[in-house]
Amino acid sequence: MISRYQHENFKYLWSDQNKFNQFLKVEIANAYAWMKHGLISESDYKKLEKTTFKLKDIEKLELETKHDVIAFTRACSLSLGDEKKYFHYGLTSTDVVDTAQSLILKEVNDILIDDIDQFMEVLRYHAQTYKMTPIMGRTHGIHAEITSFGLKFALWYDDFKRLKAQFLDAAKNMEVIKLSGAVGTFSQSDPEIQKNVSRKLNLIETNIATQVLQRDRHANYLSSIALLGAELEKIAVEIRHLSRTEVFEVSEYFDQNQKGSSAMPHKRNPVSSENITGLSRVLRGYMVTAYENIALWHERDISHSSAERIILADATSLIDYMLKRYKETLKNLVVYPNHMLRNINLTQGVIFAQGILHKLIDQGLSREEAYDLVQKLSFEALNKETPFKDLLLKNDTILSYLKHDDINHQFDITHYLKHVNHIYKEVFG
Amino acid sequence: MISRYQHENFKYLWSDQNKFNQFLKVEIANAYAWMKHGLISESDYKKLEKTTFKLKDIEKLELETKHDVIAFTRACSLSLGDEKKYFHYGLTSTDVVDTAQSLILKEVNDILIDDIDQFMEVLRYHAQTYKMTPIMGRTHGIHAEITSFGLKFALWYDDFKRLKAQFLDAAKNMEVIKLSGAVGTFSQSDPEIQKNVSRKLNLIETNIATQVLQRDRHANYLSSIALLGAELEKIAVEIRHLSRTEVFEVSEYFDQNQKGSSAMPHKRNPVSSENITGLSRVLRGYMVTAYENIALWHERDISHSSAERIILADATSLIDYMLKRYKETLKNLVVYPNHMLRNINLTQGVIFAQGILHKLIDQGLSREEAYDLVQKLSFEALNKETPFKDLLLKNDTILSYLKHDDINHQFDITHYLKHVNHIYKEVFG
Amino acid sequence: MISRYQHENFKYLWSDQNKFNQFLKVEIANAYAWMKHGLISESDYKKLEKTTFKLKDIEKLELETKHDVIAFTRACSLSLGDEKKYFHYGLTSTDVVDTAQSLILKEVNDILIDDIDQFMEVLRYHAQTYKMTPIMGRTHGIHAEITSFGLKFALWYDDFKRLKAQFLDAAKNMEVIKLSGAVGTFSQSDPEIQKNVSRKLNLIETNIATQVLQRDRHANYLSSIALLGAELEKIAVEIRHLSRTEVFEVSEYFDQNQKGSSAMPHKRNPVSSENITGLSRVLRGYMVTAYENIALWHERDISHSSAERIILADATSLIDYMLKRYKETLKNLVVYPNHMLRNINLTQGVIFAQGILHKLIDQGLSREEAYDLVQKLSFEALNKETPFKDLLLKNDTILSYLKHDDINHQFDITHYLKHVNHIYKEVFG
Amino acid sequence: MISRYQHENFKYLWSDQNKFNQFLKVEIANAYAWMKHGLISESDYKKLEKTTFKLKDIEKLELETKHDVIAFTRACSLSLGDEKKYFHYGLTSTDVVDTAQSLILKEVNDILIDDIDQFMEVLRYHAQTYKMTPIMGRTHGIHAEITSFGLKFALWYDDFKRLKAQFLDAAKNMEVIKLSGAVGTFSQSDPEIQKNVSRKLNLIETNIATQVLQRDRHANYLSSIALLGAELEKIAVEIRHLSRTEVFEVSEYFDQNQKGSSAMPHKRNPVSSENITGLSRVLRGYMVTAYENIALWHERDISHSSAERIILADATSLIDYMLKRYKETLKNLVVYPNHMLRNINLTQGVIFAQGILHKLIDQGLSREEAYDLVQKLSFEALNKETPFKDLLLKNDTILSYLKHDDINHQFDITHYLKHVNHIYKEVFG
Repeated sequence: MISRYQHENFKYLWSDQNKFNQFLKVEIANAYAWMKHGLISESDYKKLEKTTFKLKDIEKLELETKHDVIAFTRACSLSLGDEKKYFHYGLTSTDVVDTAQSLILKEVNDILIDDIDQFMEVLRYHAQTYKMTPIMGRTHGIHAEITSFGLKFALWYDDFKRLKAQFLDAAKNMEVIKLSGAVGTFSQSDPEIQKNVSRKLNLIETNIATQVLQRDRHANYLSSIALLGAELEKIAVEIRHLSRTEVFEVSEYFDQNQKGSSAMPHKRNPVSSENITGLSRVLRGYMVTAYENIALWHERDISHSSAERIILADATSLIDYMLKRYKETLKNLVVYPNHMLRNINLTQGVIFAQGILHKLIDQGLSREEAYDLVQKLSFEALNKETPFKDLLLKNDTILSYLKHDDINHQFDITHYLKHVNHIYKEVFG
Repeated sequence: MISRYQHENFKYLWSDQNKFNQFLKVEIANAYAWMKHGLISESDYKKLEKTTFKLKDIEKLELETKHDVIAFTRACSLSLGDEKKYFHYGLTSTDVVDTAQSLILKEVNDILIDDIDQFMEVLRYHAQTYKMTPIMGRTHGIHAEITSFGLKFALWYDDFKRLKAQFLDAAKNMEVIKLSGAVGTFSQSDPEIQKNVSRKLNLIETNIATQVLQRDRHANYLSSIALLGAELEKIAVEIRHLSRTEVFEVSEYFDQNQKGSSAMPHKRNPVSSENITGLSRVLRGYMVTAYENIALWHERDISHSSAERIILADATSLIDYMLKRYKETLKNLVVYPNHMLRNINLTQGVIFAQGILHKLIDQGLSREEAYDLVQKLSFEALNKETPFKDLLLKNDTILSYLKHDDINHQFDITHYLKHVNHIYKEVFG
Repeated sequence: MISRYQHENFKYLWSDQNKFNQFLKVEIANAYAWMKHGLISESDYKKLEKTTFKLKDIEKLELETKHDVIAFTRACSLSLGDEKKYFHYGLTSTDVVDTAQSLILKEVNDILIDDIDQFMEVLRYHAQTYKMTPIMGRTHGIHAEITSFGLKFALWYDDFKRLKAQFLDAAKNMEVIKLSGAVGTFSQSDPEIQKNVSRKLNLIETNIATQVLQRDRHANYLSSIALLGAELEKIAVEIRHLSRTEVFEVSEYFDQNQKGSSAMPHKRNPVSSENITGLSRVLRGYMVTAYENIALWHERDISHSSAERIILADATSLIDYMLKRYKETLKNLVVYPNHMLRNINLTQGVIFAQGILHKLIDQGLSREEAYDLVQKLSFEALNKETPFKDLLLKNDTILSYLKHDDINHQFDITHYLKHVNHIYKEVFG
Repeated sequence: MISRYQHENFKYLWSDQNKFNQFLKVEIANAYAWMKHGLISESDYKKLEKTTFKLKDIEKLELETKHDVIAFTRACSLSLGDEKKYFHYGLTSTDVVDTAQSLILKEVNDILIDDIDQFMEVLRYHAQTYKMTPIMGRTHGIHAEITSFGLKFALWYDDFKRLKAQFLDAAKNMEVIKLSGAVGTFSQSDPEIQKNVSRKLNLIETNIATQVLQRDRHANYLSSIALLGAELEKIAVEIRHLSRTEVFEVSEYFDQNQKGSSAMPHKRNPVSSENITGLSRVLRGYMVTAYENIALWHERDISHSSAERIILADATSLIDYMLKRYKETLKNLVVYPNHMLRNINLTQGVIFAQGILHKLIDQGLSREEAYDLVQKLSFEALNKETPFKDLLLKNDTILSYLKHDDINHQFDITHYLKHVNHIYKEVFG
């Protein structure tokens, strides 16, 4: 991932240094389990526990051996005496690689879950703040019915509950241990070793594996990240719509010194929302790649590895960047309730037609007749730029079914928000 | 979906006739709830319960109105008297469309879960049958270590447990009701109506919605189907590998009258496995589409609808076809255990090198020295086409560390399957 | 493809009947070439030329043989005497399948090229009609600078020139013949046969093939269709934006009897544009599938076949539907130039800031100072809802650099369209 | 892109330093054009030509302005006197950004074309070397008919001719200039400026643009790169198949010190081919992202920018890495013609059945009878492990149609390569 979109801790988490640190953690836990198993003496284990390596040594040895795990084990052996024969005991390379990756992802997932929680906190806050702030609800981009600005945040909060649950499931399937050897039969090891190492490293045991963990786990994990990205995109697209000049109900916070354009100084562009929109597309690309990694040959082929070096690091770094960045954008969002009211009144009141329609039906007019009449009057209101309410109050058929009060009641904004409390109770408990 | 890849019940489930049947079920349940609410009299409800429609009427009215739900409500009204004014009461079109789709998907999901269960049953059966049938384990396409043929099926069975759980989660998120109106505020209805209809239709209530259900649900559902497809592809690719002429450890069952090729009569091609491989790619395409449907505008835009008309029907029909077809293929798979043994013996026994390596380390040789020695001898065995065991028994360094019995023990196949029972217990309980 | 999105001619083109018709065309051309080669007598060829088949026979035979080409050749043989031994002479199944597909695609491509041409004609027409119709240009969704409505169409026209060229290239690579046999060596045939058949069928010869045409051709073809789809989506997204209530510069034509919503009779939703937007996503999914079909095993595996049965028919049918439908939508588009003007005046004239900025620089103010000053005044205009021009005319710094006439000139709309003629000349020649 | 998969020159090409260098090149060319236009004096231009910037200044200014082009122009101004007012004259940011990107891509494309040419040279070399080396042709993974090893390379060479042509077309559409300002109308500039700058920078002029170049260009470019990747994958999958233990017709070159596995010293895994296979999946992901960038809002939104920062740099760097790496792998490929012969003889000669079939038809047996007889005998040969030829020579029906010589002729390998020369002439001219 380019530096711009990767925070420092993710740079470290996906660095070679950290990868080999986690390798070593796996190797030491493995030695520990073999000590418990009776193969390694306690004193040898004490020495193995102190294994160190130099990244430079590994890099040099990898050039020679073209194999990163062998380079790693050899570099580690340099710090050891005779006990080095127990280093990497009973393991195949991928036992170390896949298990170490689980350790890295455990840290990654903890950060991402925290990102999600903080993001949800902002959503909850805005949902509460704007709970009863009326805003035009729009379907097909066309004014539909009044809703509240807070309901948008409540919706996203509810989405996030679902997405977080999915992410937790997907993440859990990535925090697993696999020490069953070259083709998954424990032929050179023992299931007890895997069990003990899993406890030491706080990872879940796989029931069965080949040389590797099965890659549907990774595909599902990247799906789950792409879903989070798509949700952020959904929010960002909404903010972009609400920011556009003709709507202008919100704008991204604009710093004193920030420049919107090199040539058009008056512009306050929703660039953060646009940025997020674009990055969500990148996450979908990574997901596509991950699905092709599932059908490996026989007990494994290593084709997934080159792809995962890129997409696992890049996708997790990117979603972390996106969640953190967009949380700030939303937190600082500038909101214009007066513009929301202005827009509500943009269409001569025809947005209240549905209520009138229902009232007419209640009062005995047939659905079809009511529909046709209401449609005709609302078209007239728009075409003649005359308030819809005025047309209603002058129409004999309408008046033969509805009283003035009935009509006025339908034009009352608060009427549209009467069930907001109920919805909030469902969402926030 | 083309007729070839869609079973009859799926043709019906996704037909217009069934769609409108489900529409009607939603409308009647809605009328029921309004009766309970006190708006509709019991006698009117009794009449509404008997609403019928003719598909032809809807088709004609849709040409005119260009709106399928309005065409539907008008066609239904033809069978009603004055009580028709309560038909579709308080609903917006999508309340009906999305809820009816949930009803269809409920049936679809039941079928797919049954497909999955039946598929898993075949996996379990083969896992048990071939539990101790030795086969060469291969990594990178190269012989690695012996495993058992049954373990392959046990692995897939375990994968399917994970994939089934994910599918159930995803499916559950599709079996939901949404009756909250034009922008999700219940402005023309009442939360109580949705609650009662959800009970009657046995669907889960959404906490919150816009005009529509949020489309991350659909994306996740299609991910989950793509994952099932990718798993079938993984199995199919394995069968294709094992079928190839040089390996020939299995073949698809070949009917007396079946023709493998127009020009090469001896060929028994794994065409079913190839078919499944191709179809899994199609499922991934549908998933990609579904992710782009998430970021709808404001309280909904209808861009998802045209895409979903195609991909929801096609993806569910296809995975049903794939699960059913490939279950039969696997059930009838022809297995050649003798060929598996032949292949095990193809490489002069160098596949046992890892065991020798570990034994040497156990006996005190350093890892590096052991590795280099074993590598040298195994290369020699391959190059000179001499049994690896013979070379070991002639090598002084080897003999200074290992006894003849130790060496023979490492060449014992059963040694490699000693933990199969443990693994089966983890997988099958 | 579902019936709704597939025109009648595409239903036929991708029907089994037509597939086998094209098979027969290839077989007869092959017989012709062998007659010219001297193998088949002219009288035998005359009989072969009259070969017929019944679709029912093929369907019955395919159930038995599980191989469509063998079923086809056997069904054809039923109409033949002894000369039937020359039917399918020297061919492998795929020679027929891939070449027949090329014949189908030749027809498909002709239709699609016509669709493209007709679509471009509408673009050209609107480009001319609205050449000088001023409309607000928007970047980031924010008002930027005035442009003309016609320029949008001119841009799309120019895009289509590029996309049509790409489609023609991709299509040409699909209209090829491949008769080189089981693994592409002409072992049972002769290069001369392929050459003669290619002339008879008016298809391009491949230089080399395996059993099949290489599938990068198909991937590129579906890319090219996805590009056309994405271009339609780009146009549709623009129309949807311009249709939204707050902008309301265009709307889709709304038939007298058409219903916009079941509950909101005043709505004129851009449903056709939304439909196109959704369908373009489906085309991208097909493209993704096609790319996975490229890496077939050895001289071919048949995994591409099941996928292509779906995606080739569906993608071509869909883009035909989209081009035809959206051409009508654009043709009937309702355009509101007065609303365009209203929107231009929405922001107190700050959209003219860039011109003022440049003028100030021309008159000697430094870029940074000019920028900061213009930004300050335009923010003030927006915040105080005061015309920007008034603020300029009251600002001493401004007036020390610019004359009143200079300022007025920058607020002249025609000034922004002065190079439209030049651009049209580049686009339309 | 991670360091491992990005060569040094690509690291530089996509660095911020180089980006701003290209920005400056565009700005100076713009100043030049305005000098020619008469706005800027020659002496001012001479000063502008010497503009310099410090990357650190830009970074600092970008933190403040949150806009990279403004940061750049301000940093450049620091090196200028009063003439700085002509720096960036008449330009909007994206004029610089998109045009500078074209300059970068021009260099990128030159390198990639060279990569392609060098790769093709290796293909051509192997095609010539192994032109007449017989190898088993395989369809469905099953032995089909003999082909030559060289023909595989000739096929790929021919593919590459097609893919190179497509890449050149796509690349050409990326090497374009766009200086038409904020919404593409040249309102603050003049078409003549763009023309002159295009000449100076050796870029092609666009006919029309909005604020940005249209992104179908970029999508097509990334499609073209994904196609190249898929072709490499196709080759890599073939090499992996031919490398597998049971086939063993080739192997990747294995360095003396290279380690195949941490635990199985005998393994020579086709890791380079597996690496390429995985990376091609990543390229497909980038393509998917690029297609979603096409439908930007109005005269542009900037959502494409964040995505392109990642995918353009990563995709071009990756395909460069892949072409260079895999060229070396293929160049050093170890080929075993004797193993190819061994495999040809693996199936009792039933691979010659097709020739016998055709001969029988030539001699008067009906196609169906011939097919059924040949199929029966070939099944018998396989089941009884008896040479097919022996069975033919003992079968009375066969002998009543074919002479011994006819039969022997069909078992002659050279017979299958008789048209190789013709094919090579088509491919190599």
